[in-house]
Amino acid sequence: MIVISERINGLFKSVSKAIDSRDTQFLQNLAREQVAAGADVLDINTGPGVDDPSGIMKWMVETVQDAVDAQLSIDTPNVQAMEAGISAAKGKVIINSTTAEAAKMDALFPLAQKYDSDMICLTLDEKGIPNDANSRAEFAMVMVAKAVEFGISTDKLYLDPLVLPVGAAQDQGMKVLEALGMFKAIADPAPKTVVGLSNVSNNTKERPLLNRTYLVMLLAYGLDAAIMDPSDTEVMEAAKASEILLNKKLYADDFLRV
Amino acid sequence: MIVISERINGLFKSVSKAIDSRDTQFLQNLAREQVAAGADVLDINTGPGVDDPSGIMKWMVETVQDAVDAQLSIDTPNVQAMEAGISAAKGKVIINSTTAEAAKMDALFPLAQKYDSDMICLTLDEKGIPNDANSRAEFAMVMVAKAVEFGISTDKLYLDPLVLPVGAAQDQGMKVLEALGMFKAIADPAPKTVVGLSNVSNNTKERPLLNRTYLVMLLAYGLDAAIMDPSDTEVMEAAKASEILLNKKLYADDFLRV
Repeated sequence: MIVISERINGLFKSVSKAIDSRDTQFLQNLAREQVAAGADVLDINTGPGVDDPSGIMKWMVETVQDAVDAQLSIDTPNVQAMEAGISAAKGKVIINSTTAEAAKMDALFPLAQKYDSDMICLTLDEKGIPNDANSRAEFAMVMVAKAVEFGISTDKLYLDPLVLPVGAAQDQGMKVLEALGMFKAIADPAPKTVVGLSNVSNNTKERPLLNRTYLVMLLAYGLDAAIMDPSDTEVMEAAKASEILLNKKLYADDFLRV
Repeated sequence: MIVISERINGLFKSVSKAIDSRDTQFLQNLAREQVAAGADVLDINTGPGVDDPSGIMKWMVETVQDAVDAQLSIDTPNVQAMEAGISAAKGKVIINSTTAEAAKMDALFPLAQKYDSDMICLTLDEKGIPNDANSRAEFAMVMVAKAVEFGISTDKLYLDPLVLPVGAAQDQGMKVLEALGMFKAIADPAPKTVVGLSNVSNNTKERPLLNRTYLVMLLAYGLDAAIMDPSDTEVMEAAKASEILLNKKLYADDFLRV
């Protein structure tokens, strides 16, 4: 699976502090830790309410990529900051994220086309969030159609079925699992699938247990990538055991250390 | 889910010793522990190579049911010991197990009919073990047809897709998951499904991690019951979290203690 670290995000107090003081070393150490823990991609998010989102995003991207070679995911609702992040990055990035809202798509698909970016596509629009697998697939189809219109290969999309908190929307867990298989069948080449894993445990106790248990289920239904915390060793062990059980990595007695 | 404890089994040295010395108290304490840990059903197995399998099975059943009210699963390849166990039990038992072999079915389906027992049905026959989901479903259909012939309601069957060790048969993990859905569609009322969970980790390191990870996957594909060790608290927590995420138990902040 593709592990996208959620930790380089101004929502975390320590990261917010490092941003305010332009603490290069803190950010670079955090990036190295995340990669060492198993992150394949680093999500870069300035956090809300910053003065100069474009300048800060550019600084974060440059700082992080001076420390590690991992792919970056540029995570901002601000289109200017998005382009600042994309153009500061040495490699191809993941745009995080569009939705099926017309204004969002009109702003972000041209960027994805221009920079040959991958793109996370949240299956919702201005009218709201989906409540079953079919409505998730319908939103997904809108964005897949838009990608085709822009000549973007459909396997550059990461379709996100929107994991909802189990404490608030308990009936949605199985529906997200069902949506994953539907997403894969929407286009050829098959789109990738991604979730924001920790949403499932928002406002619950037992967050790590719920996160890792749901990740195992998602992987068993074909999930490709998750935005998650690789420094949680138990969720990473569950992911590795899942890949062994699903025959995606060759079994070895010491598979946890491979 | 239905948790069937695997611990009251002469394969475990301490149990074998208790059987040899007819240690009533040991066996009753073990039974109480298993029920307290979350076992719904206790599997009763004399272990191999005992002198008087029928007498020992009768003693084990009587001893255990004097301590706890849980349903019993009579686990023996010996047909006389099976009937000794069934007839010693106060309640209706689970016969563990028949296969699709003609001789097995001819011996055990009449017992299931006579005593109104549930029955675990292993999907294999004299020609061997299955290697894909379809062959598992074919074996299952043979036993479902036999149940119908004997007037046994198909929801009294626990179809077992045969979990194989991931280290030896890594490609079978996903095939077992696929088989579970096929089993449910074979008959109306739908048969139940069961696995011997710990087989998945036979001869591997990381046994508890592989057991609990695979259980989560199996539950996400609709598994009803597992023969497992409820005294492994982590596998039980994974099972509880799964039931919450699959909306089979109502979410509560303290769901682990409910």
